[in-house]
Amino acid sequence: MVNVGILGATGMVGQRFIQLLDKHPDFDITALAASERSAGKRYEDATTWYLDEAMPESVKDIEVCETKPEAMSNDVDILFSSLPTDFAAKIEPAFAQDYIVASNASAMRMVPDVPLVIPEVNPEFLGLIETQQKNRGWDGFIVTNPNCSTIALTLTLKPIYDAYNINKVYVSTMQAISGAGYNGVPSMAIVDNIIPYIGNEEEKMESETLQLLGSFEDGVVKDADFKLSASCHRVGVVDGHTEAVFVELDKDEDIDDIKQTMANFKGRPQELGLYSAPKNPVIVKEEEDRPQPRLDRSADGGMAVTVGRVRKDAAMDNSFKYVLVGHNTVRGAAGASVLNAELINKEIL
Amino acid sequence: MVNVGILGATGMVGQRFIQLLDKHPDFDITALAASERSAGKRYEDATTWYLDEAMPESVKDIEVCETKPEAMSNDVDILFSSLPTDFAAKIEPAFAQDYIVASNASAMRMVPDVPLVIPEVNPEFLGLIETQQKNRGWDGFIVTNPNCSTIALTLTLKPIYDAYNINKVYVSTMQAISGAGYNGVPSMAIVDNIIPYIGNEEEKMESETLQLLGSFEDGVVKDADFKLSASCHRVGVVDGHTEAVFVELDKDEDIDDIKQTMANFKGRPQELGLYSAPKNPVIVKEEEDRPQPRLDRSADGGMAVTVGRVRKDAAMDNSFKYVLVGHNTVRGAAGASVLNAELINKEIL
Amino acid sequence: MVNVGILGATGMVGQRFIQLLDKHPDFDITALAASERSAGKRYEDATTWYLDEAMPESVKDIEVCETKPEAMSNDVDILFSSLPTDFAAKIEPAFAQDYIVASNASAMRMVPDVPLVIPEVNPEFLGLIETQQKNRGWDGFIVTNPNCSTIALTLTLKPIYDAYNINKVYVSTMQAISGAGYNGVPSMAIVDNIIPYIGNEEEKMESETLQLLGSFEDGVVKDADFKLSASCHRVGVVDGHTEAVFVELDKDEDIDDIKQTMANFKGRPQELGLYSAPKNPVIVKEEEDRPQPRLDRSADGGMAVTVGRVRKDAAMDNSFKYVLVGHNTVRGAAGASVLNAELINKEIL
Amino acid sequence: MVNVGILGATGMVGQRFIQLLDKHPDFDITALAASERSAGKRYEDATTWYLDEAMPESVKDIEVCETKPEAMSNDVDILFSSLPTDFAAKIEPAFAQDYIVASNASAMRMVPDVPLVIPEVNPEFLGLIETQQKNRGWDGFIVTNPNCSTIALTLTLKPIYDAYNINKVYVSTMQAISGAGYNGVPSMAIVDNIIPYIGNEEEKMESETLQLLGSFEDGVVKDADFKLSASCHRVGVVDGHTEAVFVELDKDEDIDDIKQTMANFKGRPQELGLYSAPKNPVIVKEEEDRPQPRLDRSADGGMAVTVGRVRKDAAMDNSFKYVLVGHNTVRGAAGASVLNAELINKEIL
Repeated sequence: MVNVGILGATGMVGQRFIQLLDKHPDFDITALAASERSAGKRYEDATTWYLDEAMPESVKDIEVCETKPEAMSNDVDILFSSLPTDFAAKIEPAFAQDYIVASNASAMRMVPDVPLVIPEVNPEFLGLIETQQKNRGWDGFIVTNPNCSTIALTLTLKPIYDAYNINKVYVSTMQAISGAGYNGVPSMAIVDNIIPYIGNEEEKMESETLQLLGSFEDGVVKDADFKLSASCHRVGVVDGHTEAVFVELDKDEDIDDIKQTMANFKGRPQELGLYSAPKNPVIVKEEEDRPQPRLDRSADGGMAVTVGRVRKDAAMDNSFKYVLVGHNTVRGAAGASVLNAELINKEIL
Repeated sequence: MVNVGILGATGMVGQRFIQLLDKHPDFDITALAASERSAGKRYEDATTWYLDEAMPESVKDIEVCETKPEAMSNDVDILFSSLPTDFAAKIEPAFAQDYIVASNASAMRMVPDVPLVIPEVNPEFLGLIETQQKNRGWDGFIVTNPNCSTIALTLTLKPIYDAYNINKVYVSTMQAISGAGYNGVPSMAIVDNIIPYIGNEEEKMESETLQLLGSFEDGVVKDADFKLSASCHRVGVVDGHTEAVFVELDKDEDIDDIKQTMANFKGRPQELGLYSAPKNPVIVKEEEDRPQPRLDRSADGGMAVTVGRVRKDAAMDNSFKYVLVGHNTVRGAAGASVLNAELINKEIL
Repeated sequence: MVNVGILGATGMVGQRFIQLLDKHPDFDITALAASERSAGKRYEDATTWYLDEAMPESVKDIEVCETKPEAMSNDVDILFSSLPTDFAAKIEPAFAQDYIVASNASAMRMVPDVPLVIPEVNPEFLGLIETQQKNRGWDGFIVTNPNCSTIALTLTLKPIYDAYNINKVYVSTMQAISGAGYNGVPSMAIVDNIIPYIGNEEEKMESETLQLLGSFEDGVVKDADFKLSASCHRVGVVDGHTEAVFVELDKDEDIDDIKQTMANFKGRPQELGLYSAPKNPVIVKEEEDRPQPRLDRSADGGMAVTVGRVRKDAAMDNSFKYVLVGHNTVRGAAGASVLNAELINKEIL
Repeated sequence: MVNVGILGATGMVGQRFIQLLDKHPDFDITALAASERSAGKRYEDATTWYLDEAMPESVKDIEVCETKPEAMSNDVDILFSSLPTDFAAKIEPAFAQDYIVASNASAMRMVPDVPLVIPEVNPEFLGLIETQQKNRGWDGFIVTNPNCSTIALTLTLKPIYDAYNINKVYVSTMQAISGAGYNGVPSMAIVDNIIPYIGNEEEKMESETLQLLGSFEDGVVKDADFKLSASCHRVGVVDGHTEAVFVELDKDEDIDDIKQTMANFKGRPQELGLYSAPKNPVIVKEEEDRPQPRLDRSADGGMAVTVGRVRKDAAMDNSFKYVLVGHNTVRGAAGASVLNAELINKEIL
């Protein structure tokens, strides 16, 4: 068993980490870090639990420590981070001197020697770790996963990207409120309403997706070379991001081939049989009114992305369109970091 | 005063007709038609009123008649129709023998000699009326307005189309539940959920928009020649469709010019000072998180479309993107037919 | 293993039956009955599946039969019924000639020789079965469970009723939309709204609760003798009924005793260790803002009722008040019938 | 014209004040006070406007001043206050030395020499002003209105209280999110959920209602002497509090008399023809599923309370029950203060 800790353990993504790690066969939660205010308290006393599944017994009595390396116990190997961006930028490097940090924070994603990884998409980017440790003289390292809406999109584009030539992608999102944290979206903003703006989200989707689908050669990441434009919107759904995707290829492809390509997609986690890997990263549905967030977000424990309405775009040349749903706090956040850690544990440790 | 009647008077769009016509300076409601079940009753007794503004006193005592020409009183000149498609296809032509039918139904929209009109966009299409009457030997005629999501989109594209050359448009909608009628969307389908499918909606948007922006020469309508692809989704908003729009032009245009072009747009209704015409058909907002359906749907009595986040699309060549909100049952339905009737009343009667 | 069938198998409660019975250690689903339209089809083809957990593989290939005794296979012992009231009134007696019917329908609940049972509350009412079979000459019999809002309320009142003397109970409900079936509540009725009326619900709560807490002596059920008044309202929650309860006792009781009494309550299912029995039928929470339907409805698989804000009612003599949440389609419907069947299987078969 | 100012002018209730006062025939907005951060800015620049009706032109250019007497211009006579409780407790008395303060804050409501007034219910309590000024040596004075949920309840109880003898009232509320301010209720707390707790709300309802229905004799307020118990809950409705009310009288009364008594109720504002007075403070509906917040909250501009389901409580002696809806930020907040000011303007100034 590998001992793991969680940075930001009392927040919503922190709680998802606990939920996903509670019965994990390889990882054992031994440290929970949070703000100064929580430090020293039992986890149960420090936390307002927001998930519908009850708080696991195993963490209730863990004493919350402060989020700094000197407060962290020595027998932890991997730290999962769901820290706010600004704080993550300062403190994750400090932890990385001694620990492996599997981070869901956006702070280090675009740093050239920090791998941004979806295990099914670009596991080879973990090769950057060596460079990172050399550059920085760290014993540990940082691995990041992308933004929630990026992960769902990229998982569905990966098989397309490998099989065909993509020219352009337009994506319009309808994102769940949990993505902003428990206090992130006021109810007055979302009941009978839509907020057509999420700070930095479009920029993240546009840059991260191209990096994830890019190449890693001679120690350098090179972006994929198609064009991608995003428009991001918040809607009154608790969990599960929905995305409408328009894809232009370089030539006309058969729509059934495209569906098969997505449905048959498997990546390294499926080959390795990683514990949190979904059987199929992309599930393709044929019903005319799916995917729906409430019904499809929890597919394969929330780790699979569900795709539907895969259809020829008759209005455009060489084009098709589809809709996807992915669980933003499982596959799009805590589950993404956990799968990264499982890959590291299998292939690197 | 012109005497008007409403076909489908007890339904949700029928109720909007009543609300918009109640204090109208040129139109006087004298006939209300509904199903056999309602016929013979006082309107108040026949109707479950769904609007938050109370039922106008003036219609409460009107006796509902059946929806057939022989039941209609002779002193009506214009009939507003919000009939279901199948029924409209059968009965609107029968009414058109003697009456002017301003229809919100989709049945006749794509019939070559029936004008599909947004007064600010293509008032000249009313020229088809003459052909229609000649072809069919009718004393009356049918004029239609487009689908709710099409109207909002087309109003914002019209100034762009006139000022620049559009290559392509992608639009992804987040549509209100009222668009499906009171019983159209079960609450189980929309609470904490999205339905990523609306029957025929994408087809309507793709075909109607190009026709509306097309030309009318020598008695023939010719579609606009750019490409338009739509993806349509239902969200838990009561009124007000939100649409994310991506536009590719043939060359790079200044984003401030584009905003000005939309904000300055005026059409025939504004020139003529029609009663229901909004001061500006398109309102451009600069706040980063507008338009929002709850806050913007009622702009200018629900007859203006609000646009925001008009921004350069850095990922694509010669492109920009924006978000719009339009009131689907006012500007997108009853108000559209009323404005058509006002234009007819001013220019044809 | 006991072979079981489901009447109304394609509906929402029917789907919950399947979910609860799929891995059941004692029951094996061998028959699924639905309307004529579905009969003859594979269950998967006949059904639009509405639950977020996927349809179990085991039922997909079962051929749906019509809902009449002659269409039912002989090797079924227990039939779970979630039929509409009117149809249940006609067809359940026909099935009861040969089968055990554990019914969630309201049709037969108030028939004097049909037991209305919550296993933790009044298991002894099963004694009516003998009378029922004798009266009617049936080989099978019918056992019913109460209305969803009644079950949750009665489970929390039972320990109070046993320990103290109740004078009066007032209850005001905030009920989930799933209680009306998938198409029962239009979204226009519930988004940014409340419907302050549910047909017959108040009457059911007022009569059923008193019967359930009543006595069964000499073959006759006698109602409990306190007064109970209900006001029932529908709110935009997917699953989980919330109820505000005001209780007047005959004398002043200690509020901590009252909490302990509820928290310590166990009934026959707990003694017998029935498979679907929650560890504690009533969970008492101390947080000031619990129970909440989204967070508490699934407690103990949805079979426990969660109570919070148990507090002295300072304004009234000898009174206290509390709030409860119970899962309306699990504990309040399918799970109730399943627990009844488990009790029958253990004590009668 | 009386010059008025608004304390807390940028908040949600502050915005309602502006909306209600914009076209007011007797009041002219000349001062807008807010936090230090807003002071010195134009109102339009200082404010994120949350109402669906646009910000009135007349206030856009007013320079926001700080919320302290020395920053207030001299030519203001009445100040409307929607300040947070703690701040109101400190600053309202300072303002009252020179100004009339019509306050919606709860800080001073229970102070013995500060009148708590609903003009239709207890206009005579304004007699306390003299005492207040004498006690404190102020040139101005403070008048308060009750809590939002109290106002709606008390308006419906007043005619009952006057016509019959009330023994007991139980009330269970379903309150709108706007009552907590724009940022008060996180969307994660209310989508597919209910929060069964609102801090201090039950205490306010229980104490304020009895005071309002009490007597004012010899300069002293004496509470009404029936019993009242409240349970308060937050639901996902934007505006409009819904309350289920159970009333026990001292003897059996005819239910139609009770309805007539409520429907015929008029108070001082109706006699005086005050500008914001609803024609009928209580509207009684006969439809079985009314009142509904989305449909009924705006009755008579949001100043009337709508009552429905007035029915005999067959389970209890001498009892009836009903449901009410009142607009919490109009009748329950800004409109309440404005009506108080209109009464003061007519009867005292």
